[in-house]
Amino acid sequence: MTERLNNLYEQMKSNDMDSILVTSPANVYYLSNYNSDPHERVLAIYLCQNEEPVLILPAMEEEDAKNAGWEFSTIAYYDHEDPWKLFGDLVQKRNKKPQSIGLETNQITLERYNKVKQIFTQAEIINAEELLASLRVIKNKKEYTLLKQAAALADLGVETGVKAIREGITEYELVAEIEYKLKKEGVQGMSFATTAISGAKTASPHGTPGNKKIEKGDMVLFDLGVIYEGYCSDITRTVAFKSVTDEQQKIYDTVKVAQQKAIDASQLGTATGEIDKAARRYIEQAGYGEYFKHRIGHGLGIETHEYPSMHENNKLELKAGMCYTIEPGIYVPGQGGVRIEDMIFMTEKGAEILTESPKELRIID
Amino acid sequence: MTERLNNLYEQMKSNDMDSILVTSPANVYYLSNYNSDPHERVLAIYLCQNEEPVLILPAMEEEDAKNAGWEFSTIAYYDHEDPWKLFGDLVQKRNKKPQSIGLETNQITLERYNKVKQIFTQAEIINAEELLASLRVIKNKKEYTLLKQAAALADLGVETGVKAIREGITEYELVAEIEYKLKKEGVQGMSFATTAISGAKTASPHGTPGNKKIEKGDMVLFDLGVIYEGYCSDITRTVAFKSVTDEQQKIYDTVKVAQQKAIDASQLGTATGEIDKAARRYIEQAGYGEYFKHRIGHGLGIETHEYPSMHENNKLELKAGMCYTIEPGIYVPGQGGVRIEDMIFMTEKGAEILTESPKELRIID
Repeated sequence: MTERLNNLYEQMKSNDMDSILVTSPANVYYLSNYNSDPHERVLAIYLCQNEEPVLILPAMEEEDAKNAGWEFSTIAYYDHEDPWKLFGDLVQKRNKKPQSIGLETNQITLERYNKVKQIFTQAEIINAEELLASLRVIKNKKEYTLLKQAAALADLGVETGVKAIREGITEYELVAEIEYKLKKEGVQGMSFATTAISGAKTASPHGTPGNKKIEKGDMVLFDLGVIYEGYCSDITRTVAFKSVTDEQQKIYDTVKVAQQKAIDASQLGTATGEIDKAARRYIEQAGYGEYFKHRIGHGLGIETHEYPSMHENNKLELKAGMCYTIEPGIYVPGQGGVRIEDMIFMTEKGAEILTESPKELRIID
Repeated sequence: MTERLNNLYEQMKSNDMDSILVTSPANVYYLSNYNSDPHERVLAIYLCQNEEPVLILPAMEEEDAKNAGWEFSTIAYYDHEDPWKLFGDLVQKRNKKPQSIGLETNQITLERYNKVKQIFTQAEIINAEELLASLRVIKNKKEYTLLKQAAALADLGVETGVKAIREGITEYELVAEIEYKLKKEGVQGMSFATTAISGAKTASPHGTPGNKKIEKGDMVLFDLGVIYEGYCSDITRTVAFKSVTDEQQKIYDTVKVAQQKAIDASQLGTATGEIDKAARRYIEQAGYGEYFKHRIGHGLGIETHEYPSMHENNKLELKAGMCYTIEPGIYVPGQGGVRIEDMIFMTEKGAEILTESPKELRIID
């Protein structure tokens, strides 16, 4: 049995959870080392105390899962078969019926939940979301190393984008240059759609690249990350092209100081909400409060966005082994926006910043 | 009101559905023209007969949605707020309580379903999955044009990959070359992680690229697609590098003929399962039945994999306006595999093949 599976069995026991059906691809990967995007197909791990673990997956992926290290049972189904029927048969065959089953309630769909209920007619349904999150939220040394390497590749992505900026290049072309460089470096993929937006478009926190050309006076915002051996990075930098107005400079400086305030607030034992507030208070005092429209950040690891959500009301305390982003922004409609984002890793000695791209305002010529 | 919203209101009426909460990002995009990956955040459209449509979305994306054309109400929530609370307030305020609500039961999570139930305590829950799928499955002329353009870009991707093959280039580098070319062409993104795998790795239908170098005698399999103005393409081609064994040639020819059989079976009114069977029967007769481990294909449009699933038991009949893939494969463990995939568009005059890359076995030198 692997350490992660063992830990989960232990946690299940302390939570009076006889069994668990893990259906989120990220949690399946965490527990099995098998990384797959099943699209609409069923992918799940079923654990029951004192029984062998079972991986439910498409037949065509069975070999891949074994090659990734899965050495326990499988239910490998074909596309014309009903995996729930096969799973139900297995549960029936086993002598002991679990009295409770844990589910990721914010991941499992209503339809699949109904299938589970038909199989486990007597079992109490327990929310296993927090339990699994609490395992994944504390990263070990190996995960730290992978996150650090993913962060370095994100730095390389920003540097590549900044170097590629020239009059008339389009946002799409900037994305192409960044991803080409990173994929040549051997990253598995981008952890989300690479953002390179410019000018007034930067006023949208979730703006998407297009055929807009970079022009003098534009701010150019890069938000990107890679997947490196299963772990995600995430960075944002904003630079100016050729010139900067006093207002742009002021907004930039405000975001930069606010980001530092949030980093400074990142202390062991601090509630995550306090990190958000540290940045938010500063931005509000500078008069830009209404333009900081999102939380300060989010956990990351196997997923780009994972537990915890770093919003102002979150009382969860920071612990060593947590990895998350700090990414305040100011977005003025019609004008433009600035965001600065780093990846933070909490250690016993305090917050370490994994991403290392420069943060003074760069004016690209 | 847009045509799509009108159609949905009509369909709801014929299905005795007073209201609907649409939570899949693809369906939200279909109905609103607002395309967003909300990650863990809530994104939804709420429709109730004789009331104004409502879009529930993160506050930071409200402007983007309006720019995309959403001209009705919104519930724009901040990250520290509970969108369900705000939605519940709105439903409370409205005088008429819906007696039924449609949900995408294979999309909405159990947690969100429970929130909905708390808001609509009296309403009957109806599965709206098929209703929405039945709207999206029939593509109009504009969608045809976009799919055709996306297919042409997929062809370009294959051609770029084939041209980039040389002794010693890695699979990752092939991916980098393909995506660079396509992103320079201005595609929004890839519709799924680009596959370029070689040699024995092609034995896995869902194999992933890595640092393996291309060597003489390898089969090289490309599976890729782009997102072009919101619509996805999907193509697979397999080529040989420098030489080919008799067995490889035999497998290739078998897949090629099987694919043509499935294309020939694509007639208006035919059950989709028959298309799968046409290819499967041929592969079985050639003695490779156990190595064709997946369905013949899947619908595509706004999503790479969408309704219908083209497996052998599917009785859904082909209609004009449907777009789907035909992608048989033979995968021999330890040796390698071949897959050939095209995008098909059903018209009143019969099946049109949207992807145009050559299908005779190419031996790259």
